[in-house]
Amino acid sequence: MQLLDGKLVAQAVKNELKAKTEALKAQGKKTPHLAAILIGHDGASETYVASKVKTCAEIGFQSTLIRFEADIGEQTLLQKIKELNEDENVDGILVQLPLPRHIHEEKVINTIAAHKDVDGFHPANIGKMIQGQPAYIPATPFGILLLLRHYKIETKGLHAVVIGRSNIVGRPISILLSQNTPTGNCTVTLCHSHTRNLKDLCLQADIIVAALGKPEFLTADMVKEGAIVIDVGITRVEDKTKKKGYALKGDVQFETVAPKCSYITPVPGGVGAMTIAALMQNTFLAAASGEVRG
Amino acid sequence: MQLLDGKLVAQAVKNELKAKTEALKAQGKKTPHLAAILIGHDGASETYVASKVKTCAEIGFQSTLIRFEADIGEQTLLQKIKELNEDENVDGILVQLPLPRHIHEEKVINTIAAHKDVDGFHPANIGKMIQGQPAYIPATPFGILLLLRHYKIETKGLHAVVIGRSNIVGRPISILLSQNTPTGNCTVTLCHSHTRNLKDLCLQADIIVAALGKPEFLTADMVKEGAIVIDVGITRVEDKTKKKGYALKGDVQFETVAPKCSYITPVPGGVGAMTIAALMQNTFLAAASGEVRG
Repeated sequence: MQLLDGKLVAQAVKNELKAKTEALKAQGKKTPHLAAILIGHDGASETYVASKVKTCAEIGFQSTLIRFEADIGEQTLLQKIKELNEDENVDGILVQLPLPRHIHEEKVINTIAAHKDVDGFHPANIGKMIQGQPAYIPATPFGILLLLRHYKIETKGLHAVVIGRSNIVGRPISILLSQNTPTGNCTVTLCHSHTRNLKDLCLQADIIVAALGKPEFLTADMVKEGAIVIDVGITRVEDKTKKKGYALKGDVQFETVAPKCSYITPVPGGVGAMTIAALMQNTFLAAASGEVRG
Repeated sequence: MQLLDGKLVAQAVKNELKAKTEALKAQGKKTPHLAAILIGHDGASETYVASKVKTCAEIGFQSTLIRFEADIGEQTLLQKIKELNEDENVDGILVQLPLPRHIHEEKVINTIAAHKDVDGFHPANIGKMIQGQPAYIPATPFGILLLLRHYKIETKGLHAVVIGRSNIVGRPISILLSQNTPTGNCTVTLCHSHTRNLKDLCLQADIIVAALGKPEFLTADMVKEGAIVIDVGITRVEDKTKKKGYALKGDVQFETVAPKCSYITPVPGGVGAMTIAALMQNTFLAAASGEVRG
């Protein structure tokens, strides 16, 4: 069993971006600039945004954090996004999800200019991605592809089972793995809450992507010997033995599943670490050359 | 075995659109107007476009057919599309594919205003469709959904195997069948030329959508008793016993497969007939209320 080490690969991606950013600066070119909008004080969102801002600093990107209280009006938020769309100094814009209930997520995402949508959530980006046109790929699926690429995993002809059909992970990774690309050409089965024989399907899988958000859902009896397991889940589970009072659990029961796998991602230090690296990659691309397919 | 009668259902859709269009006119509202662009003289394209124009007339839509010779310059074509985008009298625009080699298909499709893209090929439409936002669904997949809806087929929890990953049929129908909608909630496996165990997968399927363009590819030994089979293929195969010199063949070997099925579409008179009805539905929606999800 080989660990797909997200921390290691993310560091390699960041080192490369750092070198490229220094080269840009040495040429007198503009520093890539990510603007992040954070609304309210949700603990996980705070952590994610802080980590993105810190990573920008590590790489040498400029970043701007814009904070609003949870009772912000939708119009104020949309107006801010429009300003950032117009601001030539800003290359990438992200709005940390989830949003407060009174704000319409779809409207917010659709307002971000597609060429600055480094999260890859804008419908124009999703549509282009599907058609194989240059596009920002959503950060988590893009991170998974970067991992597969780093470990030179030959995906062609493999049967991938994706569990979870969310717009930000399950759906796009199911599409990307089935496309005619070096990290694609899988036969892909997309499963969800209405899937009847999930265990049988998983047992057929050469690759399983668990992206349903249920801690330790995927157990050893659902996994074929030699499978590649990608764990997208990251849930805080109460754990009084930990200083923070919780442990982070993936969607995979790592201890029992790992011994059967050819490759597996740990949680933490797997897909999560890659997500930020992928976001940085998108931001660099936004600054360097506009839209580029990952 | 029950035939999914595309001719019958298409006629029902067209009758309904005709009544609605008459109602629009009676209210003094604008007649829906489809503009079709045909380039060159390909036999199949001529037939398709003629059929679309004729169907417009049947329903009471206005239609405009714009013809160019195969040596038209790309700029001339793009300019014409931009004019149609601006023309308030035109509700829907379609450019009949395939295009001559010197013209960049992607550029042409991206130039059509998304809100007039009744073929549903524009990336913004594809992206919105995926995110469950109001969008024009590509005509062939939309036609399949209309068929399933008409026959009140309960798709939830069924395992659908889609053969073929084209941007206009296989890919979008694989997405639509897996979405959380009344004609969705299937577990979907998308297969293509790199799929290793296609027969095994097909034998597990409750629904098979054959959309690979190989005449009589799907044979009885690949189909489980009671399956629903949707045949998207339509290929001209030489047949000297026919007046035209060819017969139309689907991707399914109908004679041997049909007896095993609970439902099956014939060719012709199945999905093909529905495609035009779905296009008309999109055109009506474009005229009546802007973008609407089918």
